[in-house]
Amino acid sequence: MRDTILRGRGAMSQYKVIFRPEGKAIPVEEGKTLLEAADMGGIHINNLCGGQGVCGQCKVKMINGTVDKNPKSISLLSVEEIQQGYVLACQTTVKDNLEVEIPVEARLEGEQILMEGETLTFSTPEEIERPAQEEAGVSFYSPLTMKMHLKLPLPTLEDNLSDLERIYREIQRKANISDPEIELHKIRGLARILRKNEMRITVTLGRKNSKFKIIQIEGGDTLKRNFGIALDIGTTTVVAQLVDMNSKEILGTKASHNRQSRYGEDVISRIIYACNRNGMEPLNKAVIENIGDLVKSLAREKKIDLNEITAAMAAGNTTMTHLLLGMEPCFIRTEPYIPTATSFPVMKASDVWIPINPDGLFACMPCVSSYVGGDITAGVLASGMGDSSQLSMLMDFGTNGEIVLGNNEWLVCCSASVGPAFEGGGLKCGMRATKGAIQEVSISNGDVHYNTIGDGKPRGVCGSGVIDIMAELFKNKWIQPDGKFDAEKDNSRIRQTEEGKEFVIAWAGESEGGNNIAITEYDIGNLIKSKAAVFAAATVLAKSVGVDFKDINQIFIAGGFGNYLNVEKAIVIGLLPDLPPGRFRFIGNSSLAGARIALLSNHAFEKAQEIAKRMTYFELSVNPDFMNEFIAALFLPHTNQNLFPSLRGLI
Amino acid sequence: MRDTILRGRGAMSQYKVIFRPEGKAIPVEEGKTLLEAADMGGIHINNLCGGQGVCGQCKVKMINGTVDKNPKSISLLSVEEIQQGYVLACQTTVKDNLEVEIPVEARLEGEQILMEGETLTFSTPEEIERPAQEEAGVSFYSPLTMKMHLKLPLPTLEDNLSDLERIYREIQRKANISDPEIELHKIRGLARILRKNEMRITVTLGRKNSKFKIIQIEGGDTLKRNFGIALDIGTTTVVAQLVDMNSKEILGTKASHNRQSRYGEDVISRIIYACNRNGMEPLNKAVIENIGDLVKSLAREKKIDLNEITAAMAAGNTTMTHLLLGMEPCFIRTEPYIPTATSFPVMKASDVWIPINPDGLFACMPCVSSYVGGDITAGVLASGMGDSSQLSMLMDFGTNGEIVLGNNEWLVCCSASVGPAFEGGGLKCGMRATKGAIQEVSISNGDVHYNTIGDGKPRGVCGSGVIDIMAELFKNKWIQPDGKFDAEKDNSRIRQTEEGKEFVIAWAGESEGGNNIAITEYDIGNLIKSKAAVFAAATVLAKSVGVDFKDINQIFIAGGFGNYLNVEKAIVIGLLPDLPPGRFRFIGNSSLAGARIALLSNHAFEKAQEIAKRMTYFELSVNPDFMNEFIAALFLPHTNQNLFPSLRGLI
Repeated sequence: MRDTILRGRGAMSQYKVIFRPEGKAIPVEEGKTLLEAADMGGIHINNLCGGQGVCGQCKVKMINGTVDKNPKSISLLSVEEIQQGYVLACQTTVKDNLEVEIPVEARLEGEQILMEGETLTFSTPEEIERPAQEEAGVSFYSPLTMKMHLKLPLPTLEDNLSDLERIYREIQRKANISDPEIELHKIRGLARILRKNEMRITVTLGRKNSKFKIIQIEGGDTLKRNFGIALDIGTTTVVAQLVDMNSKEILGTKASHNRQSRYGEDVISRIIYACNRNGMEPLNKAVIENIGDLVKSLAREKKIDLNEITAAMAAGNTTMTHLLLGMEPCFIRTEPYIPTATSFPVMKASDVWIPINPDGLFACMPCVSSYVGGDITAGVLASGMGDSSQLSMLMDFGTNGEIVLGNNEWLVCCSASVGPAFEGGGLKCGMRATKGAIQEVSISNGDVHYNTIGDGKPRGVCGSGVIDIMAELFKNKWIQPDGKFDAEKDNSRIRQTEEGKEFVIAWAGESEGGNNIAITEYDIGNLIKSKAAVFAAATVLAKSVGVDFKDINQIFIAGGFGNYLNVEKAIVIGLLPDLPPGRFRFIGNSSLAGARIALLSNHAFEKAQEIAKRMTYFELSVNPDFMNEFIAALFLPHTNQNLFPSLRGLI
Repeated sequence: MRDTILRGRGAMSQYKVIFRPEGKAIPVEEGKTLLEAADMGGIHINNLCGGQGVCGQCKVKMINGTVDKNPKSISLLSVEEIQQGYVLACQTTVKDNLEVEIPVEARLEGEQILMEGETLTFSTPEEIERPAQEEAGVSFYSPLTMKMHLKLPLPTLEDNLSDLERIYREIQRKANISDPEIELHKIRGLARILRKNEMRITVTLGRKNSKFKIIQIEGGDTLKRNFGIALDIGTTTVVAQLVDMNSKEILGTKASHNRQSRYGEDVISRIIYACNRNGMEPLNKAVIENIGDLVKSLAREKKIDLNEITAAMAAGNTTMTHLLLGMEPCFIRTEPYIPTATSFPVMKASDVWIPINPDGLFACMPCVSSYVGGDITAGVLASGMGDSSQLSMLMDFGTNGEIVLGNNEWLVCCSASVGPAFEGGGLKCGMRATKGAIQEVSISNGDVHYNTIGDGKPRGVCGSGVIDIMAELFKNKWIQPDGKFDAEKDNSRIRQTEEGKEFVIAWAGESEGGNNIAITEYDIGNLIKSKAAVFAAATVLAKSVGVDFKDINQIFIAGGFGNYLNVEKAIVIGLLPDLPPGRFRFIGNSSLAGARIALLSNHAFEKAQEIAKRMTYFELSVNPDFMNEFIAALFLPHTNQNLFPSLRGLI
């Protein structure tokens, strides 16, 4: 079947593309890529390079129909794959009705990601939850938005205050709040709302910095129905959490891949996309859609009307926050790395097109600099390290690794480009920490033992699994301190392929996709660079304030692989400093936790702003020490073995 | 020529109506009234009753074409008029192509009104113009919006504040203003504006109550181009004044009739219209159009771009302010007379659809109650009476008469329904204080002397002229204290007509319209009721606070006829209390002056808010004293002659 639809510029052909195993037939215009076609059908295909044809992650298999093969495509596929009909989805354009199979390796399974990794029961330090208002005797108010039921005295000739001033007076009486802001359109029909409800109304008050704002006036008593959304806007994933603003209870959490991935995997490639002729709009739209879908799905499940959600708080890195708010991100990328803003006004939901109550408040966690964002401020808030007199460090592992060091008196931070390896990216068989990912590995007596997320057949290796393999290979002396396979070791799992040497973790027969799951020497080289960047950043940061690692009381580990990371193995490869395992604490998705805390406590939100202002940012990209430390760390565990005394026996 | 146009509900005929002397042919649908037709063509016809067919002001003469005569219409026309082809424009529907002459009496000439009556050079008490900020050492800022030129230091790796925080820091340094508000859409493209202009920008700061708001960021130095609009939204006329926000200079003033008049002449009939099925929208739209046209015309004349107008301040009575802002006015009309609001948030111009800079600020002078509005607050502000230790009274004459009494310690106020007589309404030959209106009359030796506004042939009598005539007739004993013509006096000017007795001020041969200009006994009766309402209100208000008129140091006279009123004659008829003429001061359009002062000085705007809060309102409609005083005042000058000792020789 072939439809021809008329367009302004002439006739354009339309085809149907059926993706397997879904079986969904998607109408696609001629010339669109298979990646775009899948996206139009809501099917996510792995893709790390933003459709540039360089990462080779989006391999799909043609079942029916004709496509042109793109030379780029061919160079990233093995002869065997080409023979089997594989193409790169991003390099293949539609010019026929097609049937395409998305192999399991190329598939993103939205619903599982991060849900397990996230610490839903994260315990908040008590001092964060106690709002300053309570101390000042105003105990009623703490969250970003709060409802108040008012029974206004009926007006008389003697008590003839206007409707609006009557509401103001009652709010003043009840909560000692004077002169709240209100927008004109909320006043226009007020007279009738009051009289239809015998002067009994529920007012929703929001906080805009130091001022209160009446954002909603409803007839009757709707006190019990007030909900909020905490958002973690990650470069890779977007997580939304629905919260009851009265009970502070978490009602549900949902995550999805950041749909901006189609424009590039990391923040830099997205900035490039946004600042070329494409503009920022597609990126902004993508993440807004993400959030909208998550929010709607949470509300539907909990039988909550979207208008009952009156507040949202988002935490994201600086670029993600810019793209979310539609702010120009272009100068984040070039020296001296200046973002448009690091603190953001409290906005109306309708200003950012988030589908909650349009008059609801929308706020973003403040950022520190172009490369230390609101996710880190949220993490510091959630960890409580900014309140403690003891010295702590926060390490957040993502494509960028952010590190914060300090206490209640001072905070310093930096960011290093780590690459996607710890998120499973850029590796031959790497994958995100989702279902089927090998997350733990041990080698004993030459046997490999592993377990996968969801306990199913392995589909690839995620960050924590990769760290385990490296550590085990190093402990077993199958790789040398420089990450090269020891030529003298003889093992059937170490094989020479057309891409160089590799170590097979799981044989084709064991795997979900029917392929060997292996780590290559090239992968290991990449991982060493990643771990060296993290370690060097932590070292430079500590040195810059004259701190020795052993003085650090607690190291908080945040980020996607937080819960699975084997600390001892991470120390073996020299990713983490050589401290007693008891000093490390996993805090999971602390970006989300921090956003939720700030959503529920204005005191915490103010504290986050204070934290962001107080943090001193060290720019590593121009720091010669960082380069020296990085080079010194390009060995397992490190060139300077004295830094890892506990590994003395091993090395 | 007859066109048939298709409508949803079937075919509807369209005709052409030509109005003379304009000669404009207006396409009109069948069934529209001539009043509506004229309105569609931008031609204003006098009309006091809102098209109810009861005031008889909209007489027009048929020249060609057929119309049905409406019985209502006939009862308000003389036999002679009917024979000449006169009809009431509001009661005559179109069902043919027509040619209609609008006689000079029925014509509103927009451009002249109020321009002469207004005190453009009104001098502001010095203490109002001195902003509180200056006292506090912050001398730079006073108007509602103000521009600031910033040369931001170029960002470096060491000084890597974000763009927005860089602007905040410079504003803080320069003006000691911290954390100004800003809307998201002003931040979005900021990075590019800064870099395109080498970090040299002009920021427009607005005041929203106690907070500052960045409402505009422009590249380069536009410091000199910042303009504001002061508005007086009267029930009858709308006046706009263009002001240079830097020099405080008035650049121009324009006035037009309030287009809401087509929906009723006074506030009550407009509330009825708005709260019936018609809704408020047509009324809101009418005044917004008024303002828009005035503002555009002022800007065009002064070669100012509308975006360069960044602030507007409006003063109007409570109902006018509600209709301007689109707020439900319905409960203003019924006991206990509760408006939706008496103080109004500072808004964005785009919220109210005023065609200045859409991010410009729009504010309204605060009201006291349903019947003492922002025009009066503005008047009190402009008069300076709220700052004086001496006792003053403000009398504002319009369809409602508002009276304020007090000093810097206390203020009381009330409002009385006066009727349209002092604005020339509801009288046989009454007209507004525009070109051709008889504004001064004296009678000596039986001869009548008068002068007109613009010195042309008389077209009618305006408020000040009417007061003069009454006083002269009374002084010459041609009318008795009860307002009836003295039957024993023989004078050719006193004639018996089918409408009762009347006094001819100007003979047909002298007048513009070729008709006798006369005042009838019925007119005089109406005027006595009007003056009695004013005097009774002033009396009750003074009594309520134990003040005797002679204790009042100064009486400010505000309103349309402010500049022409002959005080001595107004005392003769018992409209004003019997005090030495030197105690009266005309302050013209003090509503406009007050709005301008508040536009230019935030200190004054805050003072106006304090004044509105401080004023105690007395509701006269339920006050038995008022009724007694009103009845006692229904004589010339008053039943109690002791109240008017200076008239002893006359009475």
